[in-house]
Amino acid sequence: MVMAPRDELVFDVFARNCTSRPVMDTVAGRWGILTLAALLEGTHRFNELRRRVDGVSEKMLSQTLHALERDGLVTRSVLSAIPPRVEYSLTAAGKRIADKLTELIDLVEAEMPGISQAQAAYDAER
Amino acid sequence: MVMAPRDELVFDVFARNCTSRPVMDTVAGRWGILTLAALLEGTHRFNELRRRVDGVSEKMLSQTLHALERDGLVTRSVLSAIPPRVEYSLTAAGKRIADKLTELIDLVEAEMPGISQAQAAYDAER
Repeated sequence: MVMAPRDELVFDVFARNCTSRPVMDTVAGRWGILTLAALLEGTHRFNELRRRVDGVSEKMLSQTLHALERDGLVTRSVLSAIPPRVEYSLTAAGKRIADKLTELIDLVEAEMPGISQAQAAYDAER
Repeated sequence: MVMAPRDELVFDVFARNCTSRPVMDTVAGRWGILTLAALLEGTHRFNELRRRVDGVSEKMLSQTLHALERDGLVTRSVLSAIPPRVEYSLTAAGKRIADKLTELIDLVEAEMPGISQAQAAYDAER
């Protein structure tokens, strides 16, 4: 975060101390991307998310959800039941970011045949 | 990477062993995002990139560029000069991914005022 003329706040991820950097780390980190994209499919309980985000540990998913909740991108609802039922869903801002991340996922998956070829060619030369 | 019917290759970042996962880690990692976005602005030399991607160490930038080159997203050109001049630029696939990452950067920066408010509210409650 840097101050622009007339004290308007300007966010620039290229600037080392900008507060947008840790937010980008959360949403674009491996587990942030997958958690937000999974929640775009609908509200999930913790264990449903753990199954969907294949390979995430309980600790990493919990940390990711807390960071996303703090950033106002995910809401956590506790429903009274025995045992209490905890559900996670996207806020409006979370949905906008998850939409963009899903576009990124779709693009990277679509580029994978070419990327795999490039990797094989690179490795063969070395 | 998983095998679909008729041996078609299907890439799914949600699957723990898919080869798209490390690619996503590279392009969506902190330094991958910023390096690709910087190269979308044009060809850069190593030290120009280091200045643009504020805070990156020489080692991390070098590792990031190697990974992006291996994925076929960045090309490294050595121009004969004394001392030799090394330039980095995007491939067509690199440009497509960098375009999407720039959309993500713009979106996250635009969402930052609301995210900062949410963080302050979250921290005040705890």
